[in-house]
Amino acid sequence: MAQIGRTERGGVNRQALTPEDGQSRALLAKWAEDRGYTVAIDPMANVFVRREGLEPSAHPILTGSHLDTQPTGGRFDGVYGVLAGFEALETLDDIGVETRRPIEVVVWTNEEGCRFEPGAAGSSAFVGANAMKDLLAGTDADGVTFEHALQPMFEATPRAEQRPLGFPIHAYVENHIEQGPILEREQKSIGVVTSVQGTRWYSIDVWGEAGHAGTTPIANRKDALRAAIDLIEAFRISLRDDSDLVRFTVGCLEVISPNSINTVPEHVRFTVDLRHPDNDHLERLASQLNAACLGLSSPCKIDIKDKLNMPATNFAPDVVDLVRERARRLGFSSMDLASGAFHDAKYLAERYPVGMIFVPCEKGLSHNEAESAKPADLAAGTAVLTEVLVELANQ
Amino acid sequence: MAQIGRTERGGVNRQALTPEDGQSRALLAKWAEDRGYTVAIDPMANVFVRREGLEPSAHPILTGSHLDTQPTGGRFDGVYGVLAGFEALETLDDIGVETRRPIEVVVWTNEEGCRFEPGAAGSSAFVGANAMKDLLAGTDADGVTFEHALQPMFEATPRAEQRPLGFPIHAYVENHIEQGPILEREQKSIGVVTSVQGTRWYSIDVWGEAGHAGTTPIANRKDALRAAIDLIEAFRISLRDDSDLVRFTVGCLEVISPNSINTVPEHVRFTVDLRHPDNDHLERLASQLNAACLGLSSPCKIDIKDKLNMPATNFAPDVVDLVRERARRLGFSSMDLASGAFHDAKYLAERYPVGMIFVPCEKGLSHNEAESAKPADLAAGTAVLTEVLVELANQ
Repeated sequence: MAQIGRTERGGVNRQALTPEDGQSRALLAKWAEDRGYTVAIDPMANVFVRREGLEPSAHPILTGSHLDTQPTGGRFDGVYGVLAGFEALETLDDIGVETRRPIEVVVWTNEEGCRFEPGAAGSSAFVGANAMKDLLAGTDADGVTFEHALQPMFEATPRAEQRPLGFPIHAYVENHIEQGPILEREQKSIGVVTSVQGTRWYSIDVWGEAGHAGTTPIANRKDALRAAIDLIEAFRISLRDDSDLVRFTVGCLEVISPNSINTVPEHVRFTVDLRHPDNDHLERLASQLNAACLGLSSPCKIDIKDKLNMPATNFAPDVVDLVRERARRLGFSSMDLASGAFHDAKYLAERYPVGMIFVPCEKGLSHNEAESAKPADLAAGTAVLTEVLVELANQ
Repeated sequence: MAQIGRTERGGVNRQALTPEDGQSRALLAKWAEDRGYTVAIDPMANVFVRREGLEPSAHPILTGSHLDTQPTGGRFDGVYGVLAGFEALETLDDIGVETRRPIEVVVWTNEEGCRFEPGAAGSSAFVGANAMKDLLAGTDADGVTFEHALQPMFEATPRAEQRPLGFPIHAYVENHIEQGPILEREQKSIGVVTSVQGTRWYSIDVWGEAGHAGTTPIANRKDALRAAIDLIEAFRISLRDDSDLVRFTVGCLEVISPNSINTVPEHVRFTVDLRHPDNDHLERLASQLNAACLGLSSPCKIDIKDKLNMPATNFAPDVVDLVRERARRLGFSSMDLASGAFHDAKYLAERYPVGMIFVPCEKGLSHNEAESAKPADLAAGTAVLTEVLVELANQ
């Protein structure tokens, strides 16, 4: 699969709704048909590879992730979840295990959101969190609509049955590389994902007064950058935590005016990305940010704007417990953790019982051509997934 | 004069080598001719209005400044020095004072450097600090050469005699608004300018490593913005001074990559403008900056580049003493101070005995349409100038 969109530096460029995306779907469908699985597709071109159950009318178990990548993506982000699911199906066939419920491997359309925003388009439309109409109207940088770019995806799997969005499913389990360094650092093969942490984004404007760098005494300045730095320091002190759960990032900062080497900054803008797995705690942290803005001793004006408020998502305790228990039974080292990144699973959890299984990736690198993971860890994650799927499919 | 290039908000837009610049030169030449003064021009279109001395061959005293402004400039920056000089000449005529040496009012070409960089073009070429050939080859944003734009300036004063660059002069005295808040704060009418402070400019690059804002624990980050802020804090602490003479400004700061709300900054660049009136002290401060870069405890890489190293200029003690003494004798409150900004006088001081006389401006505002100064202060500065010119012209 990593040959499709392969980059010179060993990564993958297989962005959503490109010819490469179509090729990866066609390859998966071929593998599925070779194994005798049926392939279905819904109006968002989410693809479902079905291994039939003993009770075909029982609500299926879903597993999978996405095949699209970042422009300079790696070989594991997304595709691992799809191929782990597919390998689970093959394993069940190879060892002759039948399940009560069907098990389906899903490929969610446009998880990355690079060519067309927002990401997680397929999964969010599936659960009704985003309206398909709005997603189809989206355009890429060249003005091509999502709807237009979506058509070739249907042609990639010409024999696929039609499915509606949001059909009933019994549970959803997604495997994914961690995209962070914790499992590697803790030397665990399996991450039992309990939740996707909550995220709040802010844009903060600081207004001071321009002044001549050579003539304005320090005490007379209304230096917007000085105030922005003091504010970031105040945030950092206020948000300090020993639990290592708070994620606080200033990703963008610019001197909007006058941005001149010899002039005191007048207007500075910066962003804050703040995350925590616990919603109440995240709310408290958000209050602390606002309090720090109000409490700053500065002649500058501060305006803090909410840009995103996405509460934490807790996964289904039964599924989480099952993942933990099967990892233990199989003898793999494991630990509970919250997902720092978003995933299709976050949307699925709005309507269905959901769990996720993480495996370590090298140095925590992801969205990077150097993304890597150990075969033993990938296999461990797949083994746990297989056991979990069978258990769920026999409920 | 402020009618030429007047802006709606009460300021002046009379950039160098524009038709407005030509109009202001023509107006001054007309006033000069009405008074019977001769007008001369050098190859850089620096204009000289001459009040003859009793010994025409004695080296003249020069006074003046510039008539060009910033795009949103005020009514006083530059023009005050020219008109104060012209009023001094008129006063000497009105009260019948003759001087041994001629006194000339000079208009230096393109002090501001807005349309054509660098600034102080006329004065720096006059003393040979910049080569006229290089200045003439400069272009504005539309590709017009300095040389081409300079021609209409000669046509503005068609009867002006030709002068060479760098002819001998006995002394140069320039009046100017302070462009800072010190005289106003200290309630002094006259600033006895002892020097132009030294300036060093730096561009500092900080390289860390991009990382996912949601998944990268704080302790694992190589956050280039974090390091840049720590470095700015270290600079600030290291440069703290009770004398209120150090000027330290970070005017530009940008997250060069990836500049994304949910990614740890990888590459940040910022500038430092550092000034002090004493060269030895400025050198020590510069060493402290470099030491702070070396001493920073951070996983990021830091690269500090010199962009400008302009030592402090000390004005001629005889001229400075004379300004101080005449301000006192006339009963004006005065204080010694260093100029925070550059001026044509800085270049003149490379070859001639130079002094400057500052007067307060409202709130220290300059390069601003709201620039303002009190008539009483402007008159006080002109009175001191007149006395100083007479004294120098009789040496």
